[in-house]
Amino acid sequence: MALIVQKFGGTSVANPDKIKAVAERVLRKQAEGNQMLVVLSAMSGETNRLTDFAMEMQQFPDSREMDVLLSSGEQVTVSLFSMAVKAQGKQGISYLGDQVRINTDDAHTHARILSIDTEKIQTALDKGNVVTVAGFQGVAQSGDITTLGRGGSDTTAVALAAALRADACEIFTDVEGVYTTDPNICNKARKIDKISYDEMLELASLGAKVLDIRSVTFAKQHNVPIHVRSTFTETEGTWVIEEDSEMEGRVVSGVTYNKNEARITISGVPDQPGIASKIFTPISDADILVDMIIQNQDTGNGMTDMTFTVARSDYERTINLLNEIAEKIGAREGVHGADNITKISIVGVGMRNHSGIASTMFRVLSREGINISMISTSEIKVSCIIEEKYTELAVRTLHDAFELDKENMPEEEEL
Amino acid sequence: MALIVQKFGGTSVANPDKIKAVAERVLRKQAEGNQMLVVLSAMSGETNRLTDFAMEMQQFPDSREMDVLLSSGEQVTVSLFSMAVKAQGKQGISYLGDQVRINTDDAHTHARILSIDTEKIQTALDKGNVVTVAGFQGVAQSGDITTLGRGGSDTTAVALAAALRADACEIFTDVEGVYTTDPNICNKARKIDKISYDEMLELASLGAKVLDIRSVTFAKQHNVPIHVRSTFTETEGTWVIEEDSEMEGRVVSGVTYNKNEARITISGVPDQPGIASKIFTPISDADILVDMIIQNQDTGNGMTDMTFTVARSDYERTINLLNEIAEKIGAREGVHGADNITKISIVGVGMRNHSGIASTMFRVLSREGINISMISTSEIKVSCIIEEKYTELAVRTLHDAFELDKENMPEEEEL
Repeated sequence: MALIVQKFGGTSVANPDKIKAVAERVLRKQAEGNQMLVVLSAMSGETNRLTDFAMEMQQFPDSREMDVLLSSGEQVTVSLFSMAVKAQGKQGISYLGDQVRINTDDAHTHARILSIDTEKIQTALDKGNVVTVAGFQGVAQSGDITTLGRGGSDTTAVALAAALRADACEIFTDVEGVYTTDPNICNKARKIDKISYDEMLELASLGAKVLDIRSVTFAKQHNVPIHVRSTFTETEGTWVIEEDSEMEGRVVSGVTYNKNEARITISGVPDQPGIASKIFTPISDADILVDMIIQNQDTGNGMTDMTFTVARSDYERTINLLNEIAEKIGAREGVHGADNITKISIVGVGMRNHSGIASTMFRVLSREGINISMISTSEIKVSCIIEEKYTELAVRTLHDAFELDKENMPEEEEL
Repeated sequence: MALIVQKFGGTSVANPDKIKAVAERVLRKQAEGNQMLVVLSAMSGETNRLTDFAMEMQQFPDSREMDVLLSSGEQVTVSLFSMAVKAQGKQGISYLGDQVRINTDDAHTHARILSIDTEKIQTALDKGNVVTVAGFQGVAQSGDITTLGRGGSDTTAVALAAALRADACEIFTDVEGVYTTDPNICNKARKIDKISYDEMLELASLGAKVLDIRSVTFAKQHNVPIHVRSTFTETEGTWVIEEDSEMEGRVVSGVTYNKNEARITISGVPDQPGIASKIFTPISDADILVDMIIQNQDTGNGMTDMTFTVARSDYERTINLLNEIAEKIGAREGVHGADNITKISIVGVGMRNHSGIASTMFRVLSREGINISMISTSEIKVSCIIEEKYTELAVRTLHDAFELDKENMPEEEEL
């Protein structure tokens, strides 16, 4: 008998009828001879409703009380779900994070799971129950309720699958899986059957929103196979698993983009030891997260330029801060930037074994007249900063160039 | 430094603005030098909203899951309330029933409080926190969440006051206190300053809805003084306390009525031992609650009549059941009844020391042409069943006759 963990997000349990439909789906899987452990999010909209209440109370709501507040959302869905199971004449029982218990640290609103007591769940499963666990929540050693942050239910599901050595962890969502790129931009986007944890991490952090990035890290650590699939169809989705030889045969698995960045340059910086620290320490102290950083080579006059990207919402604040810094360090050519940029990336574990991927990317973008203002590379990713207006063109061009619409990639491409 | 427990019901915390207003009120009381322990209900309407969801899931929702569901309501108000306290720059912390813990039996949806661990609360109070506890909920020994049933937050407040030896337990509601009768019927109705536990129990069970009856029983057992008062004014309300000599000086404290009953008579019943059991056992087995029972004396023909009252919603069902019983036991004159009746009662601990109270009641009702079809008496109460259409007239007549509009009752009344 297999143990299957299934996680359903807020849109899948948005109202009583949808909860009933999910219960029926779970019971069909149970009837095939499986033990079923279900993880649920709050009804879609509920977390926002509660957050709005909190904002009316306090400008920066107390994080301990925020967790008490928000954890009520899953409490509603898991109890209703168990009722729906019982209404079908089957056994079901719900557990909250502090009942299981899902032990976390005490970092309220973004806690980390430390361990899970599996005894209650295992006992209930062995008695034939569909066991439903509230996602997103846990309990600190003090007994205080904690939450894992947005998307935390995915992590709950993966952590439970790891702790109970489940045979599969299925994450149900409102799309059919992970795509080679955004189907809204590129109609040749294709659902990926299998993707490695590392690729998924790069895609997730770059904006593919089907799966919370922390759950992928957790799944990788514990080697839990994740199946991302649609609540509303029976179609196979995307398996997120350990890298295999088939994946390595593909040079690029996906094209992704992030419009939420801004680029800033500080010019005429005296090129001396410790200068980078003088620029970036005050930025970090202001809680501004820096993504890409590029330092131009000193061209002989003892001066250099420093270019980096930040979240677009931090753009104005960073420019103001940097103007102060420029004055202090004597950056003579001042500060300039642009918030109408996009970071476009290609991701694939096959890059490790293939040369020329980056240059292919630069060549095809250039052929379309798209200028690249920054480049950064990792083992399995190449990212370029381009003007925002070229986003859609760039995505389609790269998707075509690397033939992502085809199931099997050719070993060498002629472009 | 005094410890004061304050309980606010659903209408007092119906939205963020009202929660803020309650927090300000509590903080004013704290600023006077008191330790403050606050018990909250769910926002008004919330319990109904959740119950409606449950009814969509299952015809008779599972009681364990119902408690998980409903307890989320207070979780929302206590966390928001603590945020409102903190927004004022003060210390506040919330606790749920299973965090305190409030230990109950495992009778889901109508659990009884067995004990309360006061350590966490006492520690938090001693640190200067406004401590807020979710009303209505507790935890069974198994770790399952339980709820105390409608009105259970009053009991939570009284039980906490008892466990922590609080100096006062204030129950805030949307009326100014307990009245001598329903002000909607009798414009001379007067707010009662002090009333005994026993009187309150008789008034509560008869329909005065300001205070849950179980909380009064609990308060009486532990001698907790309760102050029932309005959330929306600073006026003193009604103290529910141990009987004192002043109360004993009043013969009648209040007039109350219950339109929710129906009267049924089974006639021509053979007057033999065990006959009452043959009638009432099947009724009890059908979960029908019987209130008043009167058996007429055998008039010499070996036959008797039995009259009793049930909830009006059980009227049809009881008539049908009783027709079957009548046939079985050979009740030759059959079954008849009326569902257009009212039970009208006068309540007062002074009755113990005053004679003639009942006869005064009968006399003034009769003077107004109001026929009495059943009478029942207790030490501190006289109840009569009358036709429903006379309800308002009867209430006003009795209120006048016993001069309930006056602060001090005369020792003897001439009518």
